Amino acid sequence: MESVVEELVAAVGAAKVDTAEGTLRRYAVDQAPIIDFHLPVAVVFPASVPEVQAVVRACAAANVALVPRGAGTGVSGGAHATRGCVVLSLERLDRILDLSPDDETATVEPGVINAVLNEAAATHGLMYAPDPASYRSSTIGGNVATNAGGLRCAKYGVTRDSVLALDVVLADGSLIHTGHQTFKGVAGYDLTGLFVGSEGTLGIVVGITVRLKYLPQEVHTVAAFYPDFKRAAAGVLAVGRARVQPAIMELLDGGTLAQLDEIHGSDLSARGSSLLLVQTDGFGAAAEAARIRQVLQDSGAVVTTEESAEAQRLVELRRHSRGAEVDDQYQVGEDVAVPRSRLVDYVAALEAMAGEHRVHLKVVAHAGDGNLHPTFWVDREETGVDAGALARLERVLDESVTAALAMGGTITGEHGVGQYKLRWLGQEQAEPVRELQHRIKALFDPAGILNPGKAI
Amino acid sequence: MESVVEELVAAVGAAKVDTAEGTLRRYAVDQAPIIDFHLPVAVVFPASVPEVQAVVRACAAANVALVPRGAGTGVSGGAHATRGCVVLSLERLDRILDLSPDDETATVEPGVINAVLNEAAATHGLMYAPDPASYRSSTIGGNVATNAGGLRCAKYGVTRDSVLALDVVLADGSLIHTGHQTFKGVAGYDLTGLFVGSEGTLGIVVGITVRLKYLPQEVHTVAAFYPDFKRAAAGVLAVGRARVQPAIMELLDGGTLAQLDEIHGSDLSARGSSLLLVQTDGFGAAAEAARIRQVLQDSGAVVTTEESAEAQRLVELRRHSRGAEVDDQYQVGEDVAVPRSRLVDYVAALEAMAGEHRVHLKVVAHAGDGNLHPTFWVDREETGVDAGALARLERVLDESVTAALAMGGTITGEHGVGQYKLRWLGQEQAEPVRELQHRIKALFDPAGILNPGKAI
Repeated sequence: MESVVEELVAAVGAAKVDTAEGTLRRYAVDQAPIIDFHLPVAVVFPASVPEVQAVVRACAAANVALVPRGAGTGVSGGAHATRGCVVLSLERLDRILDLSPDDETATVEPGVINAVLNEAAATHGLMYAPDPASYRSSTIGGNVATNAGGLRCAKYGVTRDSVLALDVVLADGSLIHTGHQTFKGVAGYDLTGLFVGSEGTLGIVVGITVRLKYLPQEVHTVAAFYPDFKRAAAGVLAVGRARVQPAIMELLDGGTLAQLDEIHGSDLSARGSSLLLVQTDGFGAAAEAARIRQVLQDSGAVVTTEESAEAQRLVELRRHSRGAEVDDQYQVGEDVAVPRSRLVDYVAALEAMAGEHRVHLKVVAHAGDGNLHPTFWVDREETGVDAGALARLERVLDESVTAALAMGGTITGEHGVGQYKLRWLGQEQAEPVRELQHRIKALFDPAGILNPGKAI
Repeated sequence: MESVVEELVAAVGAAKVDTAEGTLRRYAVDQAPIIDFHLPVAVVFPASVPEVQAVVRACAAANVALVPRGAGTGVSGGAHATRGCVVLSLERLDRILDLSPDDETATVEPGVINAVLNEAAATHGLMYAPDPASYRSSTIGGNVATNAGGLRCAKYGVTRDSVLALDVVLADGSLIHTGHQTFKGVAGYDLTGLFVGSEGTLGIVVGITVRLKYLPQEVHTVAAFYPDFKRAAAGVLAVGRARVQPAIMELLDGGTLAQLDEIHGSDLSARGSSLLLVQTDGFGAAAEAARIRQVLQDSGAVVTTEESAEAQRLVELRRHSRGAEVDDQYQVGEDVAVPRSRLVDYVAALEAMAGEHRVHLKVVAHAGDGNLHPTFWVDREETGVDAGALARLERVLDESVTAALAMGGTITGEHGVGQYKLRWLGQEQAEPVRELQHRIKALFDPAGILNPGKAI
């Protein structure tokens, strides 16, 4: 262990290698539940691509695992430290290298914060579309590692859809460039897509070229309150059947509304026990919102014609409805997705299993793409008197994932597998498919030093 | 060779194995220029997934190359027969297995024609967005193999962006399923994206789940005539700067207009020497078209307010402006893309090099994403008197590709590398990136029987 620290110091200088206990603790985990806690032997902060290469070479020479890390906002443990590892923080690689208003592209280092890129793009009437809830703190590199989603994906796509080209440091320290600067390009295999979402297990992404989209000049928001969650989920299908594509379509259940009221002093719960929040944007925004308002009224909602300030506030409340809390042993959030036609069934199944196992449930969903974030929890005090509470929590979690898979869904819509969701991956992917991925991993990283035990 | 035919007959029955000379000739090539002509030893027409598996196993056992084929409309030679190969036609796998109006997805066999899927989707107010010029004859499987583009990609994305899941027969005859039925899903590596665009070199795609988009209820078309091509290209940038996203933005030069007039009896050439054709769709279509009309007028165009029948006819003319002709030694079409900001420069460079090398040039471009299709040709009679004409044609072709790369472009925006564009791939991709792809190929297909000598 000492030898790798020495090699790291030799590679990038002592100022960029931190072995202080406090630093090790701070960089040991991301925001996911902790399964298998380890302190890294060092956290290293390279400030250039050659320095990243030097770090990878030092770890390769010492056969020490490397855990790459952006802002540490992931919720699947993709950045959790592994035994004896070095954490490679990319936060100092934080420059926007290029932003071309005519090409409608930007090239950034991985440590650029999503919101910072969006601020820069906005001055040119452009936006970087993928908007995970963590957009004010998460990095583009982390977004690429997890193929992050967000609220406006149903219309604008996920991270993969915005990434055109990558610079990647491979496990031997060499640097490659994949993809194309143009919107279209089909030369060779899609290595870019292979790296996106691979959670740092195939290479360290050190440069990212993204396509930007047009910042909409007009935005309209429709808030539709329903007497129950199932009818709200049915409202999502009604909007789809009207063939109107919202930019955002968020579904919030009663538990979520109550929590928002508690935190923000709003009165959402008094207005309904479930909220469907729909935002349209672009030149057709007003016409789309009018059509959606009609459809939702017909589906039994109380539709409020929001003033734009209030409407925007509701979207902001939703955006941050999970931001404040971090999962722990008493509370776990999920990230399943189901085909849209199963939304109503799935919501009913969630409510039934929460009742059966006597755990609390609240749900928010990026309903436009069938991506649900149920949160299950038990009261902390309850666990003192009821030893079975934590076990029940685990059981309901497993059941919720199994139910999503049974409906043709996935175990992770946008958070990634990381370390935390490996337990379910075998239920979604057949053994030959998993083996194929392990063989690809071995091809890219024969010694297995890049973020071992994650993603696949 | 006889033994593989016998094995194929044993695998799928004699009725599905054709060795007649006429059939072999018909299935020996796609629509690309022919570099290295070979007749296949047999063409096999499996009608089910197990039959495809049996064919792959038979070829694997005999160590005979397999060239998968959709409708044979490719223009890069991806479906050209190789020495001693078996051509695997997927045309009998032509069923739409599922079309879910609420999920907004469809699952199809690879031999389904693009237009057939679109007709089925249209009855539900949906569309399959990728629309290559060959959409009336090309198959979804072929579109997946080449990651096909089309006219409306700048707004709706390319094939990869619509593909959610695949069933793939691997080189050993085993069947795997990749991806997810949901819009979002990030479990494991993006194997789906790796197969899309791999031109049948990694596996045989036998099932495809796609996301459908909403069929726009309203479409507006703006035709803008310019006095020269460079000003028309500048008009493309002007639309971009107005931050309006058209569904279609096609750029046609004078040569293309003249040819369209000749074929269709239109009077386009009389109205300008270059045409920018812009189509908007959706709820904002009218407002977007009005904004674009203004922008184009300001950029020096004569903008016609087309009646919708006439406007639609112009788009249809454009859609099929390359459909009638097949490249040969006297005429070659290209498929480069450049960053949008370089469109004007690139068009100027093309005109200069055509003049210098004394070859004819016409250009159409999917200008919204910087994807250009220049066609160079020499008169057939000219080659009798001027032995250098064909050599000049080759030279201008090489120069046009090199110039696109020098501007940050790609050798192929949407047609694929196939066999024909391998000569330029090394100019675009560095050796380590090419080697990585060959190692991935070897991982999937150790014996090298799947479409050898293509794509990478």
